[in-house]
Amino acid sequence: MEGEENGGKIEAKKEAAAPEGSIHGFESLHRLLEASLEPKVFQEVNRLLLGLNCGSPLQRLDLPDVAASLSANHDFDLQAFCFHAEKELLRQPRTVRVGLVQNSIALPTSAPFLDQKKAILEKVKPMIDAAGASGVNVLCLQEAWMMPFAFCTREKRWCEFAEPVNGESTQFLQDLARKYNMVIVNPILERDINHGETIWNTAVIIGNHGNIIGIHRKNHIPRVGDFNESTYYMEGNTGHPVFETAFGKIAVNICYGRHHPLNWLAFGLNGAEIVFNPSATVGELSEPMWPIEARNAAIANSYYVGSINRIGTEVFPNPFTSGDGKPQHSDFGHFYGSSHFSAPDASCTPSLSRYRDGLLVSDMDLNLCRQLKDKWGFRMTARYDLYAKMLSRYQKPEFSPQVVVDPHLQKRA
Amino acid sequence: MEGEENGGKIEAKKEAAAPEGSIHGFESLHRLLEASLEPKVFQEVNRLLLGLNCGSPLQRLDLPDVAASLSANHDFDLQAFCFHAEKELLRQPRTVRVGLVQNSIALPTSAPFLDQKKAILEKVKPMIDAAGASGVNVLCLQEAWMMPFAFCTREKRWCEFAEPVNGESTQFLQDLARKYNMVIVNPILERDINHGETIWNTAVIIGNHGNIIGIHRKNHIPRVGDFNESTYYMEGNTGHPVFETAFGKIAVNICYGRHHPLNWLAFGLNGAEIVFNPSATVGELSEPMWPIEARNAAIANSYYVGSINRIGTEVFPNPFTSGDGKPQHSDFGHFYGSSHFSAPDASCTPSLSRYRDGLLVSDMDLNLCRQLKDKWGFRMTARYDLYAKMLSRYQKPEFSPQVVVDPHLQKRA
Repeated sequence: MEGEENGGKIEAKKEAAAPEGSIHGFESLHRLLEASLEPKVFQEVNRLLLGLNCGSPLQRLDLPDVAASLSANHDFDLQAFCFHAEKELLRQPRTVRVGLVQNSIALPTSAPFLDQKKAILEKVKPMIDAAGASGVNVLCLQEAWMMPFAFCTREKRWCEFAEPVNGESTQFLQDLARKYNMVIVNPILERDINHGETIWNTAVIIGNHGNIIGIHRKNHIPRVGDFNESTYYMEGNTGHPVFETAFGKIAVNICYGRHHPLNWLAFGLNGAEIVFNPSATVGELSEPMWPIEARNAAIANSYYVGSINRIGTEVFPNPFTSGDGKPQHSDFGHFYGSSHFSAPDASCTPSLSRYRDGLLVSDMDLNLCRQLKDKWGFRMTARYDLYAKMLSRYQKPEFSPQVVVDPHLQKRA
Repeated sequence: MEGEENGGKIEAKKEAAAPEGSIHGFESLHRLLEASLEPKVFQEVNRLLLGLNCGSPLQRLDLPDVAASLSANHDFDLQAFCFHAEKELLRQPRTVRVGLVQNSIALPTSAPFLDQKKAILEKVKPMIDAAGASGVNVLCLQEAWMMPFAFCTREKRWCEFAEPVNGESTQFLQDLARKYNMVIVNPILERDINHGETIWNTAVIIGNHGNIIGIHRKNHIPRVGDFNESTYYMEGNTGHPVFETAFGKIAVNICYGRHHPLNWLAFGLNGAEIVFNPSATVGELSEPMWPIEARNAAIANSYYVGSINRIGTEVFPNPFTSGDGKPQHSDFGHFYGSSHFSAPDASCTPSLSRYRDGLLVSDMDLNLCRQLKDKWGFRMTARYDLYAKMLSRYQKPEFSPQVVVDPHLQKRA
């Protein structure tokens, strides 16, 4: 609202809008199918795609009017759902309300850095306010939300956006965490002053009293397409911490770590009940993988997953090549949003918009995690001893794979 | 065809048919969406659900008329597709044609065992013939295809169906492997004569010369719902072998093993290019998970996955309970078929029928596996050393998870 007179802001908004007249312009797969299918068919498709129990409709949550007003006034998508768990006889339900925020940048990347930083805080605040007004207990923002995703450029000037763990964006969120009694996960580009100004990709976990509970640094760094992130920071050194908050045990698997089943597994072995996956990923590269990996992690590890992806197309001042033989260009491609939750019982929520900022809220009873562990028994049938030995052998240079060759091939050779 | 006069056979066929007038009666999600959506919308939905590259339509394969005739005469679903890989400059394409067979049982479970055994071989043969006539190079049958999936009963009489590795069904398939120059994966209930008549759940890998290349025994055994398999056999002792055949390196992840990302990983570390997942799984329990886990495995491990599930409802002579508080009943639920292929680039084929026997064929260039390894680099960014250590620690009774507790909680306590 505050930037209507700012030409730059309007330009950034245009980037985030759906291309007109194109089928690509639909807001989400769920809404496209809902608009195109008869209700009876849609329900059956939902049963399979969202993993709903047969006959049970998707359960939506009512949010207070103030959240709806903020959504209307600030033009962000607002969706709220509810996962189902069984009642237990010895434990009370442990229902927590969890939120995910996705957003485009606020100003063009050519704007003064200080203006960009201010504008992004201003842009995200109404969504955090809506979460607070909705009684969200735990909220997670997207990867490096306080800056453009500039790693495609390989220019080191963007390191100026890096902040210490207790820096500007953390302080901004600490106030809001206190105000709303809300745990907030703050994924930043970190500058580690005490270790020679090292750069990390870090999530800061802010407790509901505004205190910093701890940090986690991204474990797996991509070298694919325009994701030149290994140019900027290295593999994290914080292990796989689980943070015990007032609202459950949470962990953070940052972006590319979602492609690594072992990374998801380790958070599970440490007891996570909700794992957030703050990300930045673009259309052609990953959109079909996006719902698969998160849901698989939730199923295999008996925990909830909150997946967040940023929004829009970010155009940079200096063109760059992408290692694909194509001419230089100035943008990274379209960040398709589509933030969503997955549950341990293989169900999931519909996704937020592919084109607009958004806040996704879901109620989840954390008891469901143990219920699924008891039901499927993956932890007990996993034979971890086999795999500990296998991985120990594998990492040795002299590892030889277990291959049985058809003798007919050996005769030929 | 040969059993028209057999009342039992007709009954078994009725079980496999779709319930009339129910939306559950659709043959596959893909066909339901194709029939319900405008072509332009369907194409976009396909892009996301099947992971097709933008604009590229689903590529179908033409099969010879004899395969179509067999499909029509024996009433089985027949679908054939083609995955796309880039041309390389130093390697020729290594395109292989791979087939999956799904089927219901042929006679009621109350028929004499000898009749059931004969009838199932007769029933499956036309599908194998269609595969052979279509030039399929590697074919996989469903889990324990030579018997009803009787493990729900906990009755030990069904162990009579167990066969030695070189038993009746293997000999039957060895002839066909020679005839069609085809590798065949034969998932059986195995009786291990040399180890005290032990029972295993085993896949026998038959080479294209009719020779037995080797075996793999199911690594992870379920204890969930009616899957009382741990009553019948124990965890396999064959590790994670990859079989180097004339048509590529293949491995077999049997049924419940698909819920274990480490099991998929180990076959990948041993160099598999195609991993088959012969299964038997029923509707309410697993249908939404079915496409997720296979596709995730293909993505995470840069190999192809062939997923096979049996068909129909199997009714047993003696009622049994299911540990769910419900009254005794005589069937396991509906095996929903839906066999399909997943590729390392996150694409997948549509699924076979949810109600009918079927043969699914797909061409796949095995070069795609290495192309995806080079593109995404999961193997190089995986930090296996971290996880070897983590799993070694985890399996010790005194393991303590990495948990950071909010000090505000500790004060309270």
